[in-house]
Amino acid sequence: MERIALEKKVLSENDRIAADLRQRFAREGTRVLNFISSPGSGKTMLLERALERFPRNLKVAVVTGDIQTDNDARRLAHYGFPVRQITTAGACHLDARMIEKSIAELDLAGLDLLLIENVGNLVCPTSYDLGEECKVVVLSVTEGEDKPLKYPGAFFRSSLMVLNKIDLLPYVPFEVPVARENARHINPTIEILETSCISGAGLDEWTRWIAPSRV
Amino acid sequence: MERIALEKKVLSENDRIAADLRQRFAREGTRVLNFISSPGSGKTMLLERALERFPRNLKVAVVTGDIQTDNDARRLAHYGFPVRQITTAGACHLDARMIEKSIAELDLAGLDLLLIENVGNLVCPTSYDLGEECKVVVLSVTEGEDKPLKYPGAFFRSSLMVLNKIDLLPYVPFEVPVARENARHINPTIEILETSCISGAGLDEWTRWIAPSRV
Repeated sequence: MERIALEKKVLSENDRIAADLRQRFAREGTRVLNFISSPGSGKTMLLERALERFPRNLKVAVVTGDIQTDNDARRLAHYGFPVRQITTAGACHLDARMIEKSIAELDLAGLDLLLIENVGNLVCPTSYDLGEECKVVVLSVTEGEDKPLKYPGAFFRSSLMVLNKIDLLPYVPFEVPVARENARHINPTIEILETSCISGAGLDEWTRWIAPSRV
Repeated sequence: MERIALEKKVLSENDRIAADLRQRFAREGTRVLNFISSPGSGKTMLLERALERFPRNLKVAVVTGDIQTDNDARRLAHYGFPVRQITTAGACHLDARMIEKSIAELDLAGLDLLLIENVGNLVCPTSYDLGEECKVVVLSVTEGEDKPLKYPGAFFRSSLMVLNKIDLLPYVPFEVPVARENARHINPTIEILETSCISGAGLDEWTRWIAPSRV
């Protein structure tokens, strides 16, 4: 019981900071998205494909979380937008305080878009509000259609499911209609996009979804 | 600091139960393996392929952990060995107490092998000793070669890395030598097997690795 009580306390502290962040983002007119998925589902590459499609006058910043390494930040920094790496040193998710610290160095004034790439983990990040406008869950077709049922939290709390790596569909046992049905069973209003960073399928829609008013 | 202190307390309680379990398993001569990976890396199918290869007189039981659903237990139950599902209802890992409860109904006497399929999560399960003889980490080639560097805990603490889904190598950007080097950089003594449940590659070696004295 002590564990549960403390977890509640930690979460409510997180919620308080996240609410402050959400107010700041709203004041600045910054759209903030929180990307969640398993390790290796292709979040970083999807973000790279969006960054290279954004117009140069779009004000975008990226925060990327990893347990170790700054590989992702180095990849994302190639596109000319500011990138901040959060190395969690063991923690399995980003929390609102990490975001608060990380954006202290960013100029939020006039920032159109803040993209937050969470730690690769389909479970824990779903419990931590980061002050985002919405969560996006990425599911690669190599992971199986059953994932929305087995990890419902991520799908229930996300506004968009990106079905990624659809170029691999001929080689893996994955039924797209079943995956869609499973996702909608958990979250009837979830939007769904199908993408491949190899074939380019769906990437224009993906980029428009991220920055609807500007692309 | 309060969080860290409590986490230590929870972990030391887990370590105490895990130590008890380890003694019980040693007394019964049961080899216990703890399988860890991202969601969708193919743990369940790898276990199915091993179960169908085991001789009928091998005494095997399986415990499988999921946040929701008993899909995996139903799949694994087809092979005639006892299977217990642990539904963690939100928890991102199995802990020793869950194992203790789950095996209460199993007859450990004379059990050769207990296979524990952890929750799909490359982070949190690595911190919880379940009393196993060793951990096994499964990495699918669709996840990228960098995962041992980004999620070092799982690779550092595992005796074996299974590189799974190698049938997909022609279609994904994945360099096997780089993945091997990254894993050995984190854990110089880690063993490595390459497998595919589609082509059948490596499955005999995999089955022998799990039950070396009996297969």
